[in-house]
Amino acid sequence: MFQLPRGTRDFTPADMEKRRFVEHRMRRLFASFGYREIQTPTFEHLELFTAKSGESIIDELYSFQDKGGRDLALRPELTAPVIRCYIEKLQMEPKPLKLFYIGNCYRYDRPQKGRYREFQQAGCELIGASTVEASTELIAMAYTIIHNVGVKNIGLHIGDLTLLAALFDHYKITPEQRKPLIPLIDKAQYTELSTALHDQGLPAKDIEELLDLLQTSDLKKIKPFIKGNRSAETEYLFIEQLFTLLHASFNITNAHLKLGIVRGLDYYKGFVFEIEAPVLGAEKQLCGGGAYELVNIFGGSEVPQAGFAIGFDRTILALESEHFTFPVSFVDAYVIPVNEDMIPIALQIATTLRDHDTTIDVDLLRRGIGKALKYADTLHAKHAIIVGPKEHQENAVTLRDLQTGAQLQVKTTDLFTHLKQS
Amino acid sequence: MFQLPRGTRDFTPADMEKRRFVEHRMRRLFASFGYREIQTPTFEHLELFTAKSGESIIDELYSFQDKGGRDLALRPELTAPVIRCYIEKLQMEPKPLKLFYIGNCYRYDRPQKGRYREFQQAGCELIGASTVEASTELIAMAYTIIHNVGVKNIGLHIGDLTLLAALFDHYKITPEQRKPLIPLIDKAQYTELSTALHDQGLPAKDIEELLDLLQTSDLKKIKPFIKGNRSAETEYLFIEQLFTLLHASFNITNAHLKLGIVRGLDYYKGFVFEIEAPVLGAEKQLCGGGAYELVNIFGGSEVPQAGFAIGFDRTILALESEHFTFPVSFVDAYVIPVNEDMIPIALQIATTLRDHDTTIDVDLLRRGIGKALKYADTLHAKHAIIVGPKEHQENAVTLRDLQTGAQLQVKTTDLFTHLKQS
Repeated sequence: MFQLPRGTRDFTPADMEKRRFVEHRMRRLFASFGYREIQTPTFEHLELFTAKSGESIIDELYSFQDKGGRDLALRPELTAPVIRCYIEKLQMEPKPLKLFYIGNCYRYDRPQKGRYREFQQAGCELIGASTVEASTELIAMAYTIIHNVGVKNIGLHIGDLTLLAALFDHYKITPEQRKPLIPLIDKAQYTELSTALHDQGLPAKDIEELLDLLQTSDLKKIKPFIKGNRSAETEYLFIEQLFTLLHASFNITNAHLKLGIVRGLDYYKGFVFEIEAPVLGAEKQLCGGGAYELVNIFGGSEVPQAGFAIGFDRTILALESEHFTFPVSFVDAYVIPVNEDMIPIALQIATTLRDHDTTIDVDLLRRGIGKALKYADTLHAKHAIIVGPKEHQENAVTLRDLQTGAQLQVKTTDLFTHLKQS
Repeated sequence: MFQLPRGTRDFTPADMEKRRFVEHRMRRLFASFGYREIQTPTFEHLELFTAKSGESIIDELYSFQDKGGRDLALRPELTAPVIRCYIEKLQMEPKPLKLFYIGNCYRYDRPQKGRYREFQQAGCELIGASTVEASTELIAMAYTIIHNVGVKNIGLHIGDLTLLAALFDHYKITPEQRKPLIPLIDKAQYTELSTALHDQGLPAKDIEELLDLLQTSDLKKIKPFIKGNRSAETEYLFIEQLFTLLHASFNITNAHLKLGIVRGLDYYKGFVFEIEAPVLGAEKQLCGGGAYELVNIFGGSEVPQAGFAIGFDRTILALESEHFTFPVSFVDAYVIPVNEDMIPIALQIATTLRDHDTTIDVDLLRRGIGKALKYADTLHAKHAIIVGPKEHQENAVTLRDLQTGAQLQVKTTDLFTHLKQS
């Protein structure tokens, strides 16, 4: 017997109904902000991903050679492909350009809850706008999508890499010294960070102060430490306005500062943010994003860029963990011919009803009415339409409400009206 | 600069709107027949595909080893994965089981119009029903989907492998002799077929007769040649009823017999069918399917199976070739703050309108009204909402109809009503 490849999943009809429901809502919400969908291939030239993330990413990639000897890789994320496509095809479009995507990504990772080797991401790229209103709208959209999809308990944290760099400058921590610190900050390993700073010769008082600044949600606390640093002072005002706009214009009141957000990758610049669902425990991050510079690395013309990606699978997990009530699909009617002569009539009735945008199934196994009704129950059918010869002579059928068990004789031409009423 | 891998495609927002429109319609139509969606991984164990299609398929596959040394392949089609999933997870479900899928497939093929290395298929599997009404409904669904998606000129051809075998039997062509003939029949290479039959020692009169039978659309012509062959006589009645039902119950009047349909693969049994769009010329086949036996080959319990796959990309090509009018997406309103103070108000108005399921974009670049209106045009925005300080003091904005150029002052609270009216 053949088995599913390790770390991948089959989605049954019940799973797919949940997934399509969430996907449809996300797509609708991206569109409501004026974003338009884009799709790129499942695999790209390997060097696209190493150019973005460094050679070390190869260990996590599904990479292979095609029969023409090209080095290809299944995409591990969608920002690099979208930016590649932008440079190839969309650089001349009017700005700002608002693009979103929903697609599968692949990482050769140890499978565990919330981490799969094939997973779906929903994300976007905003190209050509870096005003505070543009940045705020982007963050607000991420929050609104996760919130309106139905996740109740979510946290929004906003950091800034310019302000973080200014703090490092204040404590005279050199760019070289920062490198080993970044992963510790990223993983919130403050004990190890404290040791590392101590080893770098930072006084205990400064270590305590810096750790506090990395964890504070009070923006004002940062102010004294960036004084005189022009670009940091400008960025401070930007972040201050961003928080004000989130509240005033997008009704988002639970955004918190967190300068400890570093996003790990070199091409992020300026603001960064993360959205988490605490219900998921250790793997709680649902979304990450920020401003970045990738177009120029890939050979395109300088332009402001920002974006985010939402973990689609984790969003579903969060909804399930919060006992979200997903809509249940149903069959409007199950049509049962009582004998072989009635089969063409039953099929014809189904065809006519389907033209009215209904979901109609028909007994295809010539079973008795009892068995057919039992099967109709497993389909969550709302009605059974029983097609018998006597009723057919009067152009009628028996319509049975499968919730109440009530039956009545209905003219075939009135069937649709009856189905919609009940 | 990085490039798209050969044979793959980027889909721009304009492309994606077409694709999502067709995908949505197809999904809705599958569901209207009581089919439910399923999704399997993008790659499978390589042996799944060789077990189904033989070792020769490896030449066309994107196959690779993962870092655990497993031989994997990007799926070239979806029947094998869906049946693998059925055997692993769904064998105990009530029958018939109606499953559909829409997903990407991969073939290392020479790229040409209508043939891509990454392409999308929409298809289904019907498991556990082989009555004539079940088979007819399956064919009718394929036809209805392609027709209702909007392809105007389509041809439906139905063949039958049991009847074809009976013809071979009649002419004493052994199973061994049939093997080289099948690809010629499949490609309608009748001159080459004629030569091959001649080389096999079939008399000229018989060759002519057989070629005529392979191409006739008149079922009755077949009857004399299968006389006395019990299973073929039963199948004859089945196909006769199938044509009758297609017409009487599904209003499909242009179905034609074509015994020359062989589908190429060994696991097809009984009826087979193809749907084509002549507008596409050489690559005109949009859909192929039939009854098959794969579950037992894969180690599952014996059960009737049938299914089909629609080439999604060719369906789009056919619609485009027939100049189908795809719906155009639009922005309900583009909100323009006239100065910086109005930015929070403009964003707030957009947020409120989006709660009413509208598509609202906002000027994010602080440009003058003229430039902003020009950009709004490129978005196909229906309205501009101009937010100025004077109007704001009266809780109002200027609403401009971008088709007519008409402007009026509207209370902010009445905006949604105005947007929906016009």
